[in-house]
Amino acid sequence: MAGHVRYAGGFRWRGVDVRAYKPEGTHFRDVTRQVLFASDSGGRSELRYFEVAPGGHTTLERHQHVHQVLILRGRGSALLADGVAEVAPFDLVAVPPRTWHQFRAADDEALGFLCLVDAERDRPERPSEADLAELRRDPAAAAFLRV
Amino acid sequence: MAGHVRYAGGFRWRGVDVRAYKPEGTHFRDVTRQVLFASDSGGRSELRYFEVAPGGHTTLERHQHVHQVLILRGRGSALLADGVAEVAPFDLVAVPPRTWHQFRAADDEALGFLCLVDAERDRPERPSEADLAELRRDPAAAAFLRV
Repeated sequence: MAGHVRYAGGFRWRGVDVRAYKPEGTHFRDVTRQVLFASDSGGRSELRYFEVAPGGHTTLERHQHVHQVLILRGRGSALLADGVAEVAPFDLVAVPPRTWHQFRAADDEALGFLCLVDAERDRPERPSEADLAELRRDPAAAAFLRV
Repeated sequence: MAGHVRYAGGFRWRGVDVRAYKPEGTHFRDVTRQVLFASDSGGRSELRYFEVAPGGHTTLERHQHVHQVLILRGRGSALLADGVAEVAPFDLVAVPPRTWHQFRAADDEALGFLCLVDAERDRPERPSEADLAELRRDPAAAAFLRV
């Protein structure tokens, strides 16, 4: 990116493409991705802005690398190590290694967040039926999860 | 940090200390630092929130590591590779290696920004008299700089 990228309003940035969250899949819904600081920018990490439309959700997954999240807009909830939590702007969320996690927007409001990751990182893993059965032992998680 | 840190309002986070920007010095003014994601959190980078009070400024410096900045609040300006630029919330600023840079808040409004850096990084260098003379050849930079 150039040295200074002006914010364009509406959680869009000049010259930053609004991309698909992932190439394909039925395990997420209505999520976009914008790479604000890419892995080729000289640092060892990437900063992405994800936006989940009302009623949408990210993939339920886990991986070795940590996710460090700062909520920027809207309202929603997240499955984290401690269970399901409501999240709101400027909340911080740290997803430790090998921890199942998923973000959902409220039904009537989008959820937008920054997500910081190492540029070199492992691929996410999706849950097996046994993993899902284990996760669903928590009633709040059982009601929350979308797979 | 714990998995979920709720925003406390006023650009403060529960359990996150508001620290001095640097241990000492006369080369900055009215700047605080909050480490949102520290280097011991499992990633290869750190995310800090800096806030410059009205009329304050960060240190004029350069270093090999890149700074990746997202403005979060207020209004101000920055010396960057291309000269002095006004900055506003959600603008992105990338400071390339070995580039002199400094941030200033407006006289009547604070400037708050996220700054992403590699956890392992070199120490900043401050300008020599010759560096300052070179920088001041740009009249906008000459008017902007605080040392």
